[in-house]
Amino acid sequence: MAIRLGQLIEQLGGSLHGDPDFLVQKISPLETATPSSLAFLSNPLYRSQLATTQAGCVIVSPEMQSSVPAGSACIVSSNPYLYFAKVTQFWRQQQVAADRDALVHPSAVVHPQAVVHPTARIGPLCVVEAGARVGAHSWLKSRVTVGEQCQVGERCILHSGVVIGADGFGFAPHADGWVKIEQLGAVRIGNDVEIGANTSIDRGALADTVIEDGVKLDNQIQIGHNCHIGAHTAMAGCVGVAGSAKIGKHCTFGGAAMILGHLTIADNVHISSGSLVSRSISEPGQYTGFYPLAKNADWEKTAAIVRNLGTMREKLRQLEKITKNKE
Amino acid sequence: MAIRLGQLIEQLGGSLHGDPDFLVQKISPLETATPSSLAFLSNPLYRSQLATTQAGCVIVSPEMQSSVPAGSACIVSSNPYLYFAKVTQFWRQQQVAADRDALVHPSAVVHPQAVVHPTARIGPLCVVEAGARVGAHSWLKSRVTVGEQCQVGERCILHSGVVIGADGFGFAPHADGWVKIEQLGAVRIGNDVEIGANTSIDRGALADTVIEDGVKLDNQIQIGHNCHIGAHTAMAGCVGVAGSAKIGKHCTFGGAAMILGHLTIADNVHISSGSLVSRSISEPGQYTGFYPLAKNADWEKTAAIVRNLGTMREKLRQLEKITKNKE
Amino acid sequence: MAIRLGQLIEQLGGSLHGDPDFLVQKISPLETATPSSLAFLSNPLYRSQLATTQAGCVIVSPEMQSSVPAGSACIVSSNPYLYFAKVTQFWRQQQVAADRDALVHPSAVVHPQAVVHPTARIGPLCVVEAGARVGAHSWLKSRVTVGEQCQVGERCILHSGVVIGADGFGFAPHADGWVKIEQLGAVRIGNDVEIGANTSIDRGALADTVIEDGVKLDNQIQIGHNCHIGAHTAMAGCVGVAGSAKIGKHCTFGGAAMILGHLTIADNVHISSGSLVSRSISEPGQYTGFYPLAKNADWEKTAAIVRNLGTMREKLRQLEKITKNKE
Repeated sequence: MAIRLGQLIEQLGGSLHGDPDFLVQKISPLETATPSSLAFLSNPLYRSQLATTQAGCVIVSPEMQSSVPAGSACIVSSNPYLYFAKVTQFWRQQQVAADRDALVHPSAVVHPQAVVHPTARIGPLCVVEAGARVGAHSWLKSRVTVGEQCQVGERCILHSGVVIGADGFGFAPHADGWVKIEQLGAVRIGNDVEIGANTSIDRGALADTVIEDGVKLDNQIQIGHNCHIGAHTAMAGCVGVAGSAKIGKHCTFGGAAMILGHLTIADNVHISSGSLVSRSISEPGQYTGFYPLAKNADWEKTAAIVRNLGTMREKLRQLEKITKNKE
Repeated sequence: MAIRLGQLIEQLGGSLHGDPDFLVQKISPLETATPSSLAFLSNPLYRSQLATTQAGCVIVSPEMQSSVPAGSACIVSSNPYLYFAKVTQFWRQQQVAADRDALVHPSAVVHPQAVVHPTARIGPLCVVEAGARVGAHSWLKSRVTVGEQCQVGERCILHSGVVIGADGFGFAPHADGWVKIEQLGAVRIGNDVEIGANTSIDRGALADTVIEDGVKLDNQIQIGHNCHIGAHTAMAGCVGVAGSAKIGKHCTFGGAAMILGHLTIADNVHISSGSLVSRSISEPGQYTGFYPLAKNADWEKTAAIVRNLGTMREKLRQLEKITKNKE
Repeated sequence: MAIRLGQLIEQLGGSLHGDPDFLVQKISPLETATPSSLAFLSNPLYRSQLATTQAGCVIVSPEMQSSVPAGSACIVSSNPYLYFAKVTQFWRQQQVAADRDALVHPSAVVHPQAVVHPTARIGPLCVVEAGARVGAHSWLKSRVTVGEQCQVGERCILHSGVVIGADGFGFAPHADGWVKIEQLGAVRIGNDVEIGANTSIDRGALADTVIEDGVKLDNQIQIGHNCHIGAHTAMAGCVGVAGSAKIGKHCTFGGAAMILGHLTIADNVHISSGSLVSRSISEPGQYTGFYPLAKNADWEKTAAIVRNLGTMREKLRQLEKITKNKE
């Protein structure tokens, strides 16, 4: 596949400095680019790679334009990373234009009482249960389950292995063991939501679990019942959110962050990878809590001290008392 | 759907204060209940919600009965949360009574040498392999795999994406790399076990991995080969249990707790979310171990000190020595 | 099933002390072995079990031979654990020799433009997409997805629920929300790779995600886009690797270890369970970082001190100053 630079400019804007008939044959990182590649520079940290790149054309900001090597064309854009994102989308569209066939794969199991928009794609071996809805232009990749009564909005992408609407984890304790609380709610997913491979979102106990517009969830994520996740919040892989957590808009969660149940997280909160959120957060900002990595022998030493910090503090108090008495 | 209050009392007991012909049209939390809702109050912490609820009827304990608003009916039960659990089950039964069709979905792949009880339900696109057994009234939701020779007891629920009986992770080191140890055991699951979406339980290396009666596992859980999990133990989402761990009865594990291999955990042990269990536990109780969350700047400060706790302790010892010498 | 001891020696070598016509009817751990069992002793820690074992035959090292009970046969091998691994493989071969039927299960969805080697097995309800390749003698268990253009080498095993080639998690921030970066790379998996249940490996953004020969991944693992994992590296369950991490050869990762993005990890690095790797590691060795487990009350005490370690250090500095001034 190849795309003319002129075609890109027509579609996506930006100003081109170079030959509009130059054929882009691939999109590459700056450092591995070849003369037939289109590359981009977004982070000024990688500026040094610009000087030595072999790329036939580079997407740059106005400030970087003067640093583009003499032999390379460039596209100048105020936001090169966003421009690059749009190039990948255009590239993908050209690729798939040919092989769009049946929108609902014959191997998918779609319940007669499910409502799938005529423009939605349901991939091989997916299950869409009774009363479920899949909105316009949404795409369930292979082996996705959308459970009874659950709703998926428009332009969503659900990757393979996703499970929407399994039962929330609800049991009443009883002398003979746990008594199941039937989960009578569903899951409501807004528009432009993307959900990664093998991620699961449980249905609510009584009301619905809600994922607002523009939320992006990576792979292997667990969202408990009754959660509410605000618009445009993004979570990296392996994150877990316990039941009934209410998470604001425009938040980000690093990989394997964990959020306990019934907490409220404000808008614009950013949680670092590997951090456990054990209390509600009302103030925007970056929050962190993981034990620093060390050579094992060093960790053993500090961990032993951590276990006995109470003793250490006591000794310090004794010393303070003695020293104060002497003054 | 609607259920008469009188019908509930007939089925589930409890004493009704109100009109038995009142029609419950939904089950709701106290705070969002409407005049057609049935709600419940279990945790006295939420007592204040009782005063202002719009619920047509509330399930309460005898102590709370006097606080029910004048306009609302109430059902008095010694264990309102358990009563509520049973109401959800009754509600679900009425819902599904109509749409029970084929017990084994035609898209499921059930090996001719598998033994599925005639009352068990096997959902769409499930796989039940040779020699596997599924007991009476058990339900495999969509896209579940039960591997060769593995057994699922009675009244179990396995949610979508569950994998029972993948190979345990066993390799012998060798100069040329890892040599696979074929996993010759299976998985044996007792009665009344529920297993959440995308959870996996590996088959044993030689003997079987065993999950006893009444165990409840949430989503995205990993149980390694040869584990033995005692009756009525419950694990929240994203928990991992390494191979050959032996876990007692009536334990609970918070989300993302991790248990190392070859450990023994006593009955009635409770592990907090995000905690790593690195040694056997012989005494019942609550155990915790996660780094407390802080604003990132504060965490950076304390983490730097944690890395150097050895130095801090040394300084403290020096001071103690000096102070002692002076006395 | 039963295997003659003499047959094992013919196939796998080793020297037999006992009757070659003895029939092994099962393979068992030393402690639960019966007179018809073959067992093995690898770790000298379990030597005491050798004295009391009921096993009909035991695989031992030359040093242990003298400790084998009088009634038991033994196979002497310089590496009993490796020998045991090979026995399990031979056992499995005999078991499955009979029931090899169709290599590509009729319920699998294999795209006409996928290339599956004639010796590869594609299990029930798998999906192999356009342009994907599966090499000789590789085995996709049930419900595995191999995405477009992704390659699986020879003699690989992919367990149920595995997703190869879902989109990496890439978005450009924009005032209106996140703009998707189409993931134009694929996944390339070498030979002799094993991948556990419900594990996912994302396709690269531009170049490919690469898993080298002999890598072993357990269940519920997440590998982000553009990662490169060196040969013979092994990862236990629930590990997460963020995007663009470059991991060396012969590394091991304990369960639930997490590796942040864009890091470089040298060969022969070993990360303990539950540890977050937040910086590149250039030196081989064992690294650890998790908060030590304690009774909850003790943890609450030490966690409170950890939160205020800055204050504690300040007090220590004050004391040092005072003490020094007095000297």
